[in-house]
Amino acid sequence: MSLIVTGTIGIDNVQTETAKVEGVLGGSCAYFSAAASFFTPVRMVAAVGGDWPDEHRSTLQSFQKISTEGLEVRSEGKTFAWGGKYLADMNQRETLFTELGVVEEDPPAVPEQYRDSSIVFLANTHPAEQLRLLGEFPDCRLAVADTMNLWIDIAHDELSALLGKIDGLVLNDSEAHQLTGIRNAISAGRKILDLGPSFVVVKKGEHGCVLVHGDGLATLPAYPAEAEQVVDPTGAGDSFAGAMMGHIAAANQTNFATIQAALAWGTVTASFTIEAFSLNRLAGLSRREINQRMDQFRAAARIG
Amino acid sequence: MSLIVTGTIGIDNVQTETAKVEGVLGGSCAYFSAAASFFTPVRMVAAVGGDWPDEHRSTLQSFQKISTEGLEVRSEGKTFAWGGKYLADMNQRETLFTELGVVEEDPPAVPEQYRDSSIVFLANTHPAEQLRLLGEFPDCRLAVADTMNLWIDIAHDELSALLGKIDGLVLNDSEAHQLTGIRNAISAGRKILDLGPSFVVVKKGEHGCVLVHGDGLATLPAYPAEAEQVVDPTGAGDSFAGAMMGHIAAANQTNFATIQAALAWGTVTASFTIEAFSLNRLAGLSRREINQRMDQFRAAARIG
Repeated sequence: MSLIVTGTIGIDNVQTETAKVEGVLGGSCAYFSAAASFFTPVRMVAAVGGDWPDEHRSTLQSFQKISTEGLEVRSEGKTFAWGGKYLADMNQRETLFTELGVVEEDPPAVPEQYRDSSIVFLANTHPAEQLRLLGEFPDCRLAVADTMNLWIDIAHDELSALLGKIDGLVLNDSEAHQLTGIRNAISAGRKILDLGPSFVVVKKGEHGCVLVHGDGLATLPAYPAEAEQVVDPTGAGDSFAGAMMGHIAAANQTNFATIQAALAWGTVTASFTIEAFSLNRLAGLSRREINQRMDQFRAAARIG
Repeated sequence: MSLIVTGTIGIDNVQTETAKVEGVLGGSCAYFSAAASFFTPVRMVAAVGGDWPDEHRSTLQSFQKISTEGLEVRSEGKTFAWGGKYLADMNQRETLFTELGVVEEDPPAVPEQYRDSSIVFLANTHPAEQLRLLGEFPDCRLAVADTMNLWIDIAHDELSALLGKIDGLVLNDSEAHQLTGIRNAISAGRKILDLGPSFVVVKKGEHGCVLVHGDGLATLPAYPAEAEQVVDPTGAGDSFAGAMMGHIAAANQTNFATIQAALAWGTVTASFTIEAFSLNRLAGLSRREINQRMDQFRAAARIG
């Protein structure tokens, strides 16, 4: 099964209580692809501007299973840029600025050789755009989308239309609450199933995640990271989704048990992402390290 | 191993968004003992006043493995009473009133036949009182205490003295943060180990719990309850502790693996407590139902 992700490549500025970085590689597509590439080949569709640094391309290309043919460079345009600041409580962040750049222009074209992709992940963007992109993949067997509070707020109808077309939705607990009016993550997930998808993954950050699926329910804690292991949470959600979808593609199955197992791979892979800024920890990471941490996670989350 | 709990028996008024009850059986000792009794015989040391309703005694005595010889009735005194109100977000509650009654008087005596208790749970009260009670059990092999924000605030020295004498501490995540100044539950737990205990259980309510132990780390999600299953969270923490300690006593082992397994029994038992007000769901519950739900919990929290 061939996995493709559509989303953004960004140039990020990130501040935490103790450190800051400027002009680093970010964006949903970058984190997703890097994480997925430990499990399966992954194709990306995204656009960058003429200002996109060569070293960011080198970083992406250092992940051997990422195909970048769908990365469109627009020499006259500007790359999507984002600045964020985390509070002492790393679960809370402020957006300092957002410069849409090429993201405001026409969406990137899907290369002809990518049209046979069978697993499609639509990273967060306007749901009308996600719906249009989904139409580009006639062989799609599993379509999963991410969304965010902004679209729930200002594009509710388009989001409803999207929900009628996708198999799975991935979103944060606060977003699940906003979309359904229900605080309880599992009940909110059930309500979302009524809107179309056959499964919903509700991400709870440091508190783990739940999977609400027509065939069952799954719940996992986060990987138990110590405070000093958490350097920068940026990209944790996209890395989680990338590893999750990567595992599903590699398993070549889309049933409940496969998705449940995929949650754990997402959890473990995202636990590396947050250990450094940008893709610094994922770059150079080995599948063996991921497997070792999975063993630790299994031991810690074992039910007697 | 003989398990004993020292704490309060209360008369509770509880309001939620959709229902309210008045004058129901509550208190840490009641919830703890009821939950523990599904696993092992449990002794209780607590005092009530002359106003304590006969039906509350009947309810307690309906749990076959609870010994109430340490339940002291003071005909001139008043039973501890508490009123609380949950907000729409069931994780938040306001205390409406607290009438200490007999809890303000001399503590109840420990019956001579209870002095050989080998597993002691000191439910939440002033840490100086917990320390004194601990001294009543010369054969104690495992001492575990609960505490709360009030004592961290106003009795820090006494709490420090207690921490030097106990094997385990059970507390909420907000209390762990308050005690250590560290938000991360695992790092906070490590800091508490430096203060004396050999293990700490940090309870995170709907987000599960973590165990920080010199021999390892454990993390569990909560049982995945739907919104309509959560009627009244009162007593969830005490029920969790009761079933946890009950499992440890029944297993007759105090090592890391036993405590890790005990967390899951605590989680599952507490998930019944919150399905009704007071002990209404635990009363009449069978061990078979607990075991069945444990199977469901294992399936939901399975790591692929």
